[in-house]
Amino acid sequence: MSSARLIYLPLGGAGEIGMNAYVYGYGAPDAERLILVDLGVTFPDMDGTPGVDLILPDITWLRERADRLEAVFITHAHEDHVGAVGHFYAELGAPIYARAFTANIARRKMAEHGHPEDAVRTVAPWPERIEAGPMKIGFLPISHSIPESSAMVIDSPEGRVIHTGDFKLDATPVVGEAFDAELWAEVARDGVRALVCDSTNVFSSHPGRSESEVGPAIEALVSGAEGMVVATTFASNVARVRTLAEAGARAGRSIVLLGRAMRRMIEAAVQTGVLTDFPPVVSPEDARAIPRENLMLLVTGSQGERRAASAQLARGKYQGLEMKEGDLFLFSSKTIPGNERGVIRIINAFSEKGVDVVDDSDGLYHVSGHANRPDLERMHDIVRPQMLIPMHGEHRHLRAHVKLAESKGIQGVVAVNGMMIDLSGNAPTVAEYIETGRTYLDGSVKIGALDGVVRDRIRMALNGHVIVTAILDEEDEPLGDAWCEVMGLPETGHSGAALVEVLEEDLTQFLNRANGKTLRDDAKLEEALRRIARQSAQTEIGKKPEVTVVISRMR
Amino acid sequence: MSSARLIYLPLGGAGEIGMNAYVYGYGAPDAERLILVDLGVTFPDMDGTPGVDLILPDITWLRERADRLEAVFITHAHEDHVGAVGHFYAELGAPIYARAFTANIARRKMAEHGHPEDAVRTVAPWPERIEAGPMKIGFLPISHSIPESSAMVIDSPEGRVIHTGDFKLDATPVVGEAFDAELWAEVARDGVRALVCDSTNVFSSHPGRSESEVGPAIEALVSGAEGMVVATTFASNVARVRTLAEAGARAGRSIVLLGRAMRRMIEAAVQTGVLTDFPPVVSPEDARAIPRENLMLLVTGSQGERRAASAQLARGKYQGLEMKEGDLFLFSSKTIPGNERGVIRIINAFSEKGVDVVDDSDGLYHVSGHANRPDLERMHDIVRPQMLIPMHGEHRHLRAHVKLAESKGIQGVVAVNGMMIDLSGNAPTVAEYIETGRTYLDGSVKIGALDGVVRDRIRMALNGHVIVTAILDEEDEPLGDAWCEVMGLPETGHSGAALVEVLEEDLTQFLNRANGKTLRDDAKLEEALRRIARQSAQTEIGKKPEVTVVISRMR
Repeated sequence: MSSARLIYLPLGGAGEIGMNAYVYGYGAPDAERLILVDLGVTFPDMDGTPGVDLILPDITWLRERADRLEAVFITHAHEDHVGAVGHFYAELGAPIYARAFTANIARRKMAEHGHPEDAVRTVAPWPERIEAGPMKIGFLPISHSIPESSAMVIDSPEGRVIHTGDFKLDATPVVGEAFDAELWAEVARDGVRALVCDSTNVFSSHPGRSESEVGPAIEALVSGAEGMVVATTFASNVARVRTLAEAGARAGRSIVLLGRAMRRMIEAAVQTGVLTDFPPVVSPEDARAIPRENLMLLVTGSQGERRAASAQLARGKYQGLEMKEGDLFLFSSKTIPGNERGVIRIINAFSEKGVDVVDDSDGLYHVSGHANRPDLERMHDIVRPQMLIPMHGEHRHLRAHVKLAESKGIQGVVAVNGMMIDLSGNAPTVAEYIETGRTYLDGSVKIGALDGVVRDRIRMALNGHVIVTAILDEEDEPLGDAWCEVMGLPETGHSGAALVEVLEEDLTQFLNRANGKTLRDDAKLEEALRRIARQSAQTEIGKKPEVTVVISRMR
Repeated sequence: MSSARLIYLPLGGAGEIGMNAYVYGYGAPDAERLILVDLGVTFPDMDGTPGVDLILPDITWLRERADRLEAVFITHAHEDHVGAVGHFYAELGAPIYARAFTANIARRKMAEHGHPEDAVRTVAPWPERIEAGPMKIGFLPISHSIPESSAMVIDSPEGRVIHTGDFKLDATPVVGEAFDAELWAEVARDGVRALVCDSTNVFSSHPGRSESEVGPAIEALVSGAEGMVVATTFASNVARVRTLAEAGARAGRSIVLLGRAMRRMIEAAVQTGVLTDFPPVVSPEDARAIPRENLMLLVTGSQGERRAASAQLARGKYQGLEMKEGDLFLFSSKTIPGNERGVIRIINAFSEKGVDVVDDSDGLYHVSGHANRPDLERMHDIVRPQMLIPMHGEHRHLRAHVKLAESKGIQGVVAVNGMMIDLSGNAPTVAEYIETGRTYLDGSVKIGALDGVVRDRIRMALNGHVIVTAILDEEDEPLGDAWCEVMGLPETGHSGAALVEVLEEDLTQFLNRANGKTLRDDAKLEEALRRIARQSAQTEIGKKPEVTVVISRMR
């Protein structure tokens, strides 16, 4: 009989930045009562996941143990933390707890999927706590780039764990609660078994800057602008949106919110009382009657997303508004690695229109929402945990964060997705390796990352696709010639003849010479036709395409 | 009768960074004698050019006027300046002039394509000059991140044009010629009609740093390392490779060059006398017998390229060498926008092996090869041209560079690919718009960027591909059911049945109900089957795939 243990199991977010999903459990091995902290998504890209709509964590392990899941807790309303609640509610069923602003966003997601909104329960901040089986969970406020971010204080019979969620140490966050070092020290005073800690900015060696620091630069920029001013940032950064809007209002400009996420986030912030003093906004329709030098648009699309407002404005009119020579476009944001091409495309499109683009390259108009290295150290010092488990980072971040903790005498372990860590002992130990991965939302269907669907798409994109059709009569003799259709391949190759004709000639020649044994055997015939099509294409165009063979038998 | 004019026509490199190809001409309109400066390539990516091997400028305009082309001049041996000489020699035929190191690289490219190596002619630096019809061209040395970079001094009856090529102002470039301000002032003394100028770093506001500045930091890093040291940089940055090798040698390490480009560039530099004192190198085979703490590998793959040595080492053994815990990997390079994902993938793979990765985030181990904003101003001041034409930049760079020049009273124009500029007057004027674009090398075939081939590949990657086969008998009646094959689509959708079966059922149902008019008409039938397949898929999996319809008639 084994005794009870306290476990930590990341299903997403550890070894990557995105789709956060962290399981905690307490109880006898394989009978722990479980909670889930965060249930987020990550975004696909053309490189690795063409055609995929959204990437979700693979929650198979948790689904199979849904009867042991007490509750889901959401630290804050960023997509990589809350984005999957609607996608998995049917499978998990557990109630979802969050603070008011986060709950507001979560309920919208539940409604989109037809799930009951009251499955999302609003929690007050610490010291309120929720009982979840043998655990008690409290929402400890912490500053970040979105309102009401909270760390999870998880109490179990094995002691207290603090899961920071995403955070920075901001004494003047513009909107929402400042970091309260005294409160944190008090919560940590009686000992913290494990600090499970954001690692995003572990490589940034200078102390982090406050959200309030960008205000003066933004105000100076906007007040000096002559034409229309358009600014983009993450819509969820309500503090930034407010700073931008106030700079516009002070410069005598009417504020317009463009893009669904922008309107939605401000609406949620107002509804939940997080935002009380946002300047009045005008609709895009009304804005058309206002001289451009009196307008400031706050728009979605800081990452160059093709369908967002910024990209639409770069291409032409959007909701009747258009950028012109002498206007100013401000990226009050950082480009996330991988999104550079999209952002640069927009900047160049604006350049062609004569629009001046200002970005964050001088660090004036944006600050990060994550704790830098010195801030992480300060957090370690305040909490003084027995062990540190880095999360919210790629492998390189987790490794550096463990090194940082160990340099201060705190035991750590690099735990990536699927590594179940036993937190019960004196040091963190790996209890088990869980098979985990990614689930793709593709159209309206969920598919496994390893199902081969996306692999086939990538192959077609790289190699093109040839479809070979052969018809055989009742005696298994070829009926006419082989047929080819090609997609994504050059029309003509070295011979100067149409590629399709070259392929058909080679394939038909083979068909007419093939022996009965091959012609009678679908698998053999298919394999032979594929091989010939690939070889023929290689000779003609220097490329071996993907080949689909369709054999029709007149039996 | 129009008089003679001096023209500039970028076919590549203006409005983008890559595939440089700039035409100059002098003579009566449409009868100018022409020269081409640089003939480079750019690199494909999965986002926009999946499956493409290399991107070349569209030289249709020049090919159609090949009889007027006097010569091709190559400023330096970077791929985006020399990479296409082998691909287009057959079409252009003109002799290729370059300085010794560049010529060495160009000849290797010619040989790869079976072209005569002696079509590449070695030119001594200024004051030697080549006559090309009514123009005289000299190679004026300028510092850059590769040996023997040169500006082109183009003299015509309309005066002198200086085409900078890529450059920085480096007084101590480690390898090759320092920037000689006096020589440049002398060349410019009698007046320069136009300065056609590198714009890459126009947004970098601090003065550029010398290549020699990275030496001490690299030496400190290498001498303090304990395990094996592996460093990557652009192989063509011979100065950097030498600095790295010397740091290794001074730390008592044997130097190993890994990757074809690395060996090739050092070989070319030694052959041409550019590099005279490179530390001795050992082969990968011999390196296996040397203790790892006495080894330093210099490897290709600074941009995370999947097949380069760095990526191979990240995955496992390469040429018998393998990285281990405690080893050090140095990126002595900057990540070009768009390559971040590949580089980060490698860093994380090394992190999993326990390898410490050092990159350029603190600016210690890399300097740019391009002139920053203050350096561009200095260049303007030295040359004092009548007009400035920015090149080697995206639209945003060109626009900012023109603004910079105009702020100092120099007339400029944003001239992107295809804009023919008349340099003969008092100010640059647009003479003509030439249709231009990109040519893709795909396998062994050249295709036009607008041929639709790549568009179809991207569509298949995003939407998947359905192949519908229908057979009709002699009376145009369906012979059996419709067949489907799918590629890149989920196996099952909402109904739980196989997607292929759902599609086949809907298609067969249609076939059996279709009227004779539709069944007899290939185009109508194809269109109807495509529409049904797309609708059926939309209902079943929420996605409209690409559809290829194959209709076979037993006539």
